[in-house]
Amino acid sequence: MSDAFTASEKTRLRRAHLRGHYDKETVYAVLDASMLCHVGYNIDGEPYVTPTIHWRDDDRLYWHGSSASRMIRSVEGGAPVCLTVSFLDGLVLARSGFHCSVNYRSAMAFGHARAVTDEAHRLAALKDFIDKMMPGRWDDMRPPNEQEMKATTVVYMDIEEASAKIRTGPPIDDEEDYALSCWAGVLPIEQHIGQPIADPKLAAGTPEPDYLRAFKLLDGGGD
Amino acid sequence: MSDAFTASEKTRLRRAHLRGHYDKETVYAVLDASMLCHVGYNIDGEPYVTPTIHWRDDDRLYWHGSSASRMIRSVEGGAPVCLTVSFLDGLVLARSGFHCSVNYRSAMAFGHARAVTDEAHRLAALKDFIDKMMPGRWDDMRPPNEQEMKATTVVYMDIEEASAKIRTGPPIDDEEDYALSCWAGVLPIEQHIGQPIADPKLAAGTPEPDYLRAFKLLDGGGD
Repeated sequence: MSDAFTASEKTRLRRAHLRGHYDKETVYAVLDASMLCHVGYNIDGEPYVTPTIHWRDDDRLYWHGSSASRMIRSVEGGAPVCLTVSFLDGLVLARSGFHCSVNYRSAMAFGHARAVTDEAHRLAALKDFIDKMMPGRWDDMRPPNEQEMKATTVVYMDIEEASAKIRTGPPIDDEEDYALSCWAGVLPIEQHIGQPIADPKLAAGTPEPDYLRAFKLLDGGGD
Repeated sequence: MSDAFTASEKTRLRRAHLRGHYDKETVYAVLDASMLCHVGYNIDGEPYVTPTIHWRDDDRLYWHGSSASRMIRSVEGGAPVCLTVSFLDGLVLARSGFHCSVNYRSAMAFGHARAVTDEAHRLAALKDFIDKMMPGRWDDMRPPNEQEMKATTVVYMDIEEASAKIRTGPPIDDEEDYALSCWAGVLPIEQHIGQPIADPKLAAGTPEPDYLRAFKLLDGGGD
């Protein structure tokens, strides 16, 4: 299996090409760095963008939802989908508006979505999701019952094309602007995990599990 | 002007309807809470989702980009667009996988995008963007020149329909699951502004402007 996606008409970056990446390692690092993605799909030819939670198994992306969800119903039959993951990592304040920018990481993945129809595959995918997010959690929870499994649709998409785009570092100004007295630099934006908030209805004496502390936001900010 | 959007086939929430909001105050609070949005549009009938920076003036959303950008070129002629803003505010760990959820805020806005063709309007929109993001910054920077203005396209979209969806609070479990020994609660995810990082090429003695300290992420986390 190749370790890079091929730049096509769909994914070839026209501008700022030095920021583009097609190798799987980079694309997957961005896709895996957040649970939150944005799924783009069409209804009657018009675009919709729905935020949801995704997870990845090699070249396959998964997400899930209520079987009654309009997004799920719109894509599960093989619809073309663009799944995008993005982070705003900082404001890049240059000495001119034109060179102002943001530091960011984003990845776009294209493919066709399908519902997981096999019951065992669906259960395994959901377990894999929880295991990837928070190892140890699945075994702690009450297992899903038949009715719950019926109400849940798991969708997958084999990544046909993908690319990542990343900007880091200080502003790049026009040479003659460096002499200006305007302050320039980066204002970083960071994500953190806060302190766990126990459910007010938690049974008395329930200990805080170690796996809670092990959970990290993978985007570099988490602690 | 009405202070609420009308729930249509496009925006009416089918499920979890208690989480849906159509009043402008709530929808705009989510749209304004982040600079980062995801723009959904079509090329040859296939969906694309591009992250970008947006700003709002009443019922009108703006974003901008290089005049050569494929996203800009694809939408500027009146294309239907879905612009979505989302925050992941926390993991909601319930006692069953089925009731696991996330706390989030999201808003979807629908309309048709158009390029701002009037030069004065374009300049005013860019100034408004900077003024909203960081009051005081515009006057500090070198003004845009003719060539830069030519290379920049500003796009706007009058919001035709919009809705917000918000989840907050602890998990909601099945009544009989509250007795389980499984830990349950919320793991908050927060965004913060980090310390400013001065450009290594900053002219010696350039002071850090007060407006840098005044910038806040509006999502409640920023400080």
